[in-house]
Amino acid sequence: MSYQYDERVDGPLATHDKATVVAQLQALIPDLPLLHEQEDLRPFECDGLAAYRATPMMVALPDKVEQVEALLKFANAHKIPVVARGAGTGLSGGALPLDKGILLVMARFNRILEVDPEACVARVQPGVRNLAISQAAAPHGLYYAPDPSSQIACSIGGNVAENAGGVHCLKYGLTVNNILKLEILTIDGERITLGSDALDAPGFDLLALFTGSEGMLGIVTEVTVKLLTKPQSAKVLLASFDDVEKAGAAVAQIIGAGVIPGGLEMMDNLAIRAAEDFIHAGYPVDAEAILLCEVDGVESDVREDVACVEALLRAAGATDIRLAKDEAERQRFWAGRKNAFPAVGRISPDYYCMDGTIPRRELPRVLKGIEDLSKEYGLQVANVFHAGDGNMHPLILFDANAPGETERAEAIGARILELCVAVGGSITGEHGVGREKINQMCAQFNSDELTFFHALKAAFDPQGLLNPGKNVPTLHRCAEFGSMHVHHGALPFPELERF
Amino acid sequence: MSYQYDERVDGPLATHDKATVVAQLQALIPDLPLLHEQEDLRPFECDGLAAYRATPMMVALPDKVEQVEALLKFANAHKIPVVARGAGTGLSGGALPLDKGILLVMARFNRILEVDPEACVARVQPGVRNLAISQAAAPHGLYYAPDPSSQIACSIGGNVAENAGGVHCLKYGLTVNNILKLEILTIDGERITLGSDALDAPGFDLLALFTGSEGMLGIVTEVTVKLLTKPQSAKVLLASFDDVEKAGAAVAQIIGAGVIPGGLEMMDNLAIRAAEDFIHAGYPVDAEAILLCEVDGVESDVREDVACVEALLRAAGATDIRLAKDEAERQRFWAGRKNAFPAVGRISPDYYCMDGTIPRRELPRVLKGIEDLSKEYGLQVANVFHAGDGNMHPLILFDANAPGETERAEAIGARILELCVAVGGSITGEHGVGREKINQMCAQFNSDELTFFHALKAAFDPQGLLNPGKNVPTLHRCAEFGSMHVHHGALPFPELERF
Repeated sequence: MSYQYDERVDGPLATHDKATVVAQLQALIPDLPLLHEQEDLRPFECDGLAAYRATPMMVALPDKVEQVEALLKFANAHKIPVVARGAGTGLSGGALPLDKGILLVMARFNRILEVDPEACVARVQPGVRNLAISQAAAPHGLYYAPDPSSQIACSIGGNVAENAGGVHCLKYGLTVNNILKLEILTIDGERITLGSDALDAPGFDLLALFTGSEGMLGIVTEVTVKLLTKPQSAKVLLASFDDVEKAGAAVAQIIGAGVIPGGLEMMDNLAIRAAEDFIHAGYPVDAEAILLCEVDGVESDVREDVACVEALLRAAGATDIRLAKDEAERQRFWAGRKNAFPAVGRISPDYYCMDGTIPRRELPRVLKGIEDLSKEYGLQVANVFHAGDGNMHPLILFDANAPGETERAEAIGARILELCVAVGGSITGEHGVGREKINQMCAQFNSDELTFFHALKAAFDPQGLLNPGKNVPTLHRCAEFGSMHVHHGALPFPELERF
Repeated sequence: MSYQYDERVDGPLATHDKATVVAQLQALIPDLPLLHEQEDLRPFECDGLAAYRATPMMVALPDKVEQVEALLKFANAHKIPVVARGAGTGLSGGALPLDKGILLVMARFNRILEVDPEACVARVQPGVRNLAISQAAAPHGLYYAPDPSSQIACSIGGNVAENAGGVHCLKYGLTVNNILKLEILTIDGERITLGSDALDAPGFDLLALFTGSEGMLGIVTEVTVKLLTKPQSAKVLLASFDDVEKAGAAVAQIIGAGVIPGGLEMMDNLAIRAAEDFIHAGYPVDAEAILLCEVDGVESDVREDVACVEALLRAAGATDIRLAKDEAERQRFWAGRKNAFPAVGRISPDYYCMDGTIPRRELPRVLKGIEDLSKEYGLQVANVFHAGDGNMHPLILFDANAPGETERAEAIGARILELCVAVGGSITGEHGVGREKINQMCAQFNSDELTFFHALKAAFDPQGLLNPGKNVPTLHRCAEFGSMHVHHGALPFPELERF
């Protein structure tokens, strides 16, 4: 689907003559690689949300902070929008280009500047891959905890922009909980340090404000991350259930017992079968749901926790429980889960990945709601989720070539997210808002709250040049979106009335 | 010392006729208790930073959100400053009143609205005492983790305002890591929800921005906190050292080994003797330093961690190591530490408590710097600190009745904080900036960074009516403070040149 920045609802953008801008930038920053030919721009048309595509006016590939600084000052002076991009693995279209804007690719900032095993921190450039940090820290017995499924490819700068999570964030937190300090450049080229090497910094918490701001407040040029000591031991249990709700109840039991698993993941039958067919992880294809529960720590704790979790799973009605017998099986159990998205990609021409977060107690109610929506819209939905922290990833299966299916997939996706909001949850857990969920932000926040967001945005970027049209909708967009709802004559959350 | 809001450097405040304001407010909100007689105002002259005092124009004691809403709208319309106060236990003067302002006391909002053991959350009003939350959660085996030493008295609203910590925050985080959602009122009386019941909320992280903002962005009317399962077991080790630096090195060893203690506290000889004399905790009065290290979790882990920590302490040169033999001794060990401040109060007419945070590796260097400053200024300094997270509480002993000692105490305090900044640390760990450290904010942040703070403040409170003169200095103030330094003809951090 071609992505159109909508100037009518997202605000006007200045138009520039591409050849002139290219010539000016080349004169200003001669050592800055700049792509502007149509065929060179194609690889940058989309990020991991491949359903939306747009061709950027040009792509800049800096590897020096001075180049970025000069580019931002130039863009600011000429009112040219700038969209930052890391590895381009994002799933919400946060790095979708603008045809009137510069795509600022930070991937070449890929140096690990320092690993300090005593302070348990690493200082890295934003283009460093998530997994590369753990690899660099490994000789010291340390690692970087957040592990998005894309960790082999995604960059730490993108992780900061999206406040990325992963299967271990229940225990170890999101990106915001695992970074200490950021060096950033603002749109007017100022260099600012957010946070500090110490535990807490005085003044307003700009580090947290910036993390997850999706490239709208500035450009990250350096990240100081916390490193953790590698757990001595990690064991994973695979439990089968004949009923999704029983699996959901088991999650509550485990958390309630005070065990904090390193990971606690749930998959439903459709997701199990897709993953098993692809990875041969040894999943029970007849189960209605499985739970993967990992406990980590020192040997003796892990033994005790495994026994405790096993008893709880049994009491919750698990029909089968298996402890990965060795590290190879443990890796295989996780590989099935981590590859669930591409696995679903094999059984459906297209799929659309949701990222709602809900209070854990609402799990059965929301699963039922998704099932009903699935029937209403005639589209299959596979459920894969970080059950422990209530972060759901419903995968909507559709065929973009079948007339109307893309629109139906978008519509059911929106309904699912609105359902998450209605039960007290939120429209994103770890993938961000980006382009994808911008309309649902109107359901999540009222206009007073959005006005604050705009004022904060204006404090950093008064001309609105950094990633416009993403993350935070204009009030105009919400008015349009709201009136669409009225036009359809439906209450936003009819599915809740049944409960 | 009388506290004067300095209109010259902190910005002008409108002057109002007190009788008129009282009459207007009484007419507008008849059920709002309002104190305005001189003798009624005295108890509200200061918070826990008793060295500074001012008499508020009046004190409002609401217990309904509608009263606060109406009061804020009135104050906003008439440009009357509003200073919020919880229990008044803060140590940085964040709740110091303004003689031209209303002191808004939130202490009567003291109801626990809900404890949800399944979701592990509690919804409480802002005036609820920190410890009362844990007491209400105890029947479910749950507790609220942050435990400031003042937890028996301090309120959760004040904890949010100051992003309070405690001896267990190394493992369990600060207030910001332990809350999910805030209901707030802005200065124009708008009700806003920050955060959500879910793990993560989309949009900018206003919850984190608000936490620690010291009453400058809005008034908290409801807090949803996370509750944790009570650890099955907790053991505390008391280790003696004949050298402060060895104790500091032991801290690094423990953290480096991957043990995350529930608490890891250090006290120097002066603090040990004061505490022992007061509490009879059983501390070794001849030791140059002690470390208190608590490990908590399931039985078997704790056993293993105790053995591991004991071995590390021995290797680091501890001269004596004692494991609290029972819960009573464990409580006694902690009582000594938690009462270190009043204990020092017994051996000195006055003391001044600092709250700098430094990277752990700088501990020996900063301790040496404090020792040198102590000699230079002729004032004793007792050191008590959350060693695990680098949060230091040097206590400067002085006599306010001795001419010049108060000024010397303030001066050495400022130098100590600047030293913290110079080694990459920060001027506050958990007590906040308030009035006390407002000048040191000029050392911590440059004018670009402060400009951001002002823009954020303006987004919430354009007229600057919420707690003016605290937390974030005006550029004018920093210019004054900077020129003072030049006037003294000294580099800000000469003590660093020796290293």
